[in-house]
Amino acid sequence: MNAPTSSRSGGRAARRAARSTALPDNLRPVRPGMEGGRYRPLSEADVLKIHHAALDALETIGLADAPESGIAHLTGAGAILGDDGRIRFPRALVEDTIAKANRSVTMMSRDGLHDLELSGNRVHYGTAGAAVHLVDIDGKNYRDCGVQDLHDAAKIVNTLNNVHFCQRPMVCRDIPDNMEMDYNSLFACVTGTTKHIGTSFTEPGFVAPAIEMLHMIAGGEDKWRERPFVSNSNCFVVPPMKFATESCEVMEECIKHGMPVLLLSAGMAGATAPSTIAGAIVQAVAECLAGLVYVNAVKPGHPAIFGTWPFGLDLRTGAMTGGSGEQALLTAGCAQMHSFYALPGGAAAGIADSKLPDMQAGWEQMCSNVMAGLSGCNMVYEAAGMHASLLGFCHESLILGDDIIGQALRCVRGIEVNDDTLALDQIADVCLNGPGHYLGTAATLSRMQSDHCYPTYGNRMSPKEWVEMEKPDLLDTATARKEAILGAPSAAALDPMMDRAIRDKFNIHLKG
Amino acid sequence: MNAPTSSRSGGRAARRAARSTALPDNLRPVRPGMEGGRYRPLSEADVLKIHHAALDALETIGLADAPESGIAHLTGAGAILGDDGRIRFPRALVEDTIAKANRSVTMMSRDGLHDLELSGNRVHYGTAGAAVHLVDIDGKNYRDCGVQDLHDAAKIVNTLNNVHFCQRPMVCRDIPDNMEMDYNSLFACVTGTTKHIGTSFTEPGFVAPAIEMLHMIAGGEDKWRERPFVSNSNCFVVPPMKFATESCEVMEECIKHGMPVLLLSAGMAGATAPSTIAGAIVQAVAECLAGLVYVNAVKPGHPAIFGTWPFGLDLRTGAMTGGSGEQALLTAGCAQMHSFYALPGGAAAGIADSKLPDMQAGWEQMCSNVMAGLSGCNMVYEAAGMHASLLGFCHESLILGDDIIGQALRCVRGIEVNDDTLALDQIADVCLNGPGHYLGTAATLSRMQSDHCYPTYGNRMSPKEWVEMEKPDLLDTATARKEAILGAPSAAALDPMMDRAIRDKFNIHLKG
Repeated sequence: MNAPTSSRSGGRAARRAARSTALPDNLRPVRPGMEGGRYRPLSEADVLKIHHAALDALETIGLADAPESGIAHLTGAGAILGDDGRIRFPRALVEDTIAKANRSVTMMSRDGLHDLELSGNRVHYGTAGAAVHLVDIDGKNYRDCGVQDLHDAAKIVNTLNNVHFCQRPMVCRDIPDNMEMDYNSLFACVTGTTKHIGTSFTEPGFVAPAIEMLHMIAGGEDKWRERPFVSNSNCFVVPPMKFATESCEVMEECIKHGMPVLLLSAGMAGATAPSTIAGAIVQAVAECLAGLVYVNAVKPGHPAIFGTWPFGLDLRTGAMTGGSGEQALLTAGCAQMHSFYALPGGAAAGIADSKLPDMQAGWEQMCSNVMAGLSGCNMVYEAAGMHASLLGFCHESLILGDDIIGQALRCVRGIEVNDDTLALDQIADVCLNGPGHYLGTAATLSRMQSDHCYPTYGNRMSPKEWVEMEKPDLLDTATARKEAILGAPSAAALDPMMDRAIRDKFNIHLKG
Repeated sequence: MNAPTSSRSGGRAARRAARSTALPDNLRPVRPGMEGGRYRPLSEADVLKIHHAALDALETIGLADAPESGIAHLTGAGAILGDDGRIRFPRALVEDTIAKANRSVTMMSRDGLHDLELSGNRVHYGTAGAAVHLVDIDGKNYRDCGVQDLHDAAKIVNTLNNVHFCQRPMVCRDIPDNMEMDYNSLFACVTGTTKHIGTSFTEPGFVAPAIEMLHMIAGGEDKWRERPFVSNSNCFVVPPMKFATESCEVMEECIKHGMPVLLLSAGMAGATAPSTIAGAIVQAVAECLAGLVYVNAVKPGHPAIFGTWPFGLDLRTGAMTGGSGEQALLTAGCAQMHSFYALPGGAAAGIADSKLPDMQAGWEQMCSNVMAGLSGCNMVYEAAGMHASLLGFCHESLILGDDIIGQALRCVRGIEVNDDTLALDQIADVCLNGPGHYLGTAATLSRMQSDHCYPTYGNRMSPKEWVEMEKPDLLDTATARKEAILGAPSAAALDPMMDRAIRDKFNIHLKG
């Protein structure tokens, strides 16, 4: 046993040396924008069936409740307003729109270092949602969430390698005035992270103040329009097949101000969308195609994300559920439709129904996150921190989500096959000439960091080490990390002069 | 708001009525043997590259350490014994073997109700492994596991819809004599579950006593050979590329006695197999192809499972890890190779590195389990209960695994696309004539149970209900279920006369 032992120690020393060298970004094992798409839940024939059913729905059923301005834009583009008030879309109009729509959108970051290039099957993960509770894991309590919680979430996102953007995940329930809530939500996110931000507006009139703030932060309207680092998450439909009148007006405002739009159709399969997965996808696709026609009628080529977000429902109770296999399939099926249209798309995944970051939350968050990634979803929304079927947001869970998404991204990266990785020479050498194992081979050492995504919080100790380390608890580890992040100054803080100027102009609720 | 409310109540009452009707088995939302394969981690070209590299490895490197009897069988079939003692396999021999091997194996159950038909991309999940600890979640302790723990695991498996077979997951460390340990392991499993059982033998001489016991239980040798409800999990290789001499002799014994064989190649990527995913798959495929030639040389067409089980390694420490994205890819890539050969295959998934059933365990177990299913793996081994990178087995985790695998199977079932599920008529009716929602439609009600896989332990309550129910804890729920299962008599208990007869003949350690 001497030879293997000593050569194993040699390997260990060499591994120690190798891992002390930091990797350049392009060699990191996982990165934003890796290509998914090897999982295709639908056959090509099924994709076409869904496409044609969506076109049929648009042509024969259409959408109700467009605002006056929308009716003008849409009929101007060739849609038909019926006597029943519904707007119907001839197939040619939809097909022409798909052909000319913007199919490669960059979601800008404020720092220019975290831009997300949406095209093909490039995968990105981030937060989103409108949780109304913060999950306090210490006391297992759900309490109303507020602007500080939102800012803290953004600050945490800023530190996580695998959470690529920060769409507002929580509602600031401590700000009763809706206009103030909207621009304060934006301010809380912008000052927490320099990554791309997604936000919402309650009314069309609330867009202008936010834009004013963004112009100030960007250093002028031209700078903002050059690099719009905030997008508008826009629930432009009330499924089934009705425009959300006021949200459409918000959308028009955002387009006017150069803000990219997420066309978000959030049907609930079994309530506001058909209960079948295929049917819910058909309706979501139809609704988003209507939105795409709308956007391109207002401004051809305006950056828009095809946001088919159908949610699952627990039909026994009629309550929403996001942690199921059905949800993972809804999202993966939608991603395949985005890919079919070659349009930048997004959908929801990573939702836990569990109230706490427990084993259930782990399996629920991984299931839909990994399937969304494998199916090549460009923007995976609500990917971390979401509990209680979207009602609660948890900071510790957000932190642990970085590990979940890291492993999901490793799966997205997939299996590289070439002469090096097939390793036939290495197998021959190890078996016929070598020590009989691969621990210390040059190939093993050189790939130690580039091929393997190591967990940050996940514990791989042996039971013996684990006992020796006093059985570290996953949630305690996450809490300690949270406290360290929130205890440090925000890396995204605005220049103090700018911060002062904004606070002078707006009623900012976040403590300075 | 009156109309929607009242019609929603109508829907609720109808749903209540619908769910009180039990579904026939063929309408259950998930079942053993559903077809996977929509996730294909490898391109067709990559599959061929791996295949050819494996053939090259067999032809040029070959395997060392075959027993005398194996050398005779293999050279008799056309393999070549080199001066270096290695047996090399001409391509034609391997290709002929693949062509004539048994490609549709039935894993029998003792009760005839749980037979598993392995063919195509039909997916089944079950336990396996050789854990040396039982995880006691109450005290967070790892203690030595014994025969009662193994029996309890089998008893739990017997009650779980989504755990389809029971390969021995734990070693009986309380039985010092290896022969007694082998037949006691078998007895502990057989008396715990009527599902298919997998077991191991330490030495060739230990097969005969176990077979004698199985003949008794089956009611004679002919009955046993007709429906062999136990398979042999056989580590016939010591990677890289060496036969495990004694295990090969065990395998020959099992073949003689009509016991199906799992050809298990358990390399560790980076230690006993190349560190690259592709290279580890090449070596595992080569080794299992050698095993396939061996089995078919001994007895053409003998039922064998292509058990490519490469494991991941944490290269920073040299310790095994099973909870990573790399592990999920190793397993999914292997499943695609099984599918390429159209051979019944199995691989490992569902392994947690986490020591306890916490959030980490949830995400780790789901990641590889769902990917194994989507890739169409016939037999997903170690799918539930495994912790600490296979060192610990946890009964509560096994129970919760039923939920994890249920959701994974729902994903495997996939998205049905046909005129009914596309739901265009329903969308039209709801939007143009109906109540504007789908809650009470006939289509929604009729699919409430058949389309949706509801969790048994996973909690979908709203935060409000959850508080009212005093915040039920997932692990407490699992523990209560465990106590109920273990407190009841075993449904797989042998007839008392038979039990007595076996105890008279064998030194049975399990308390009667």
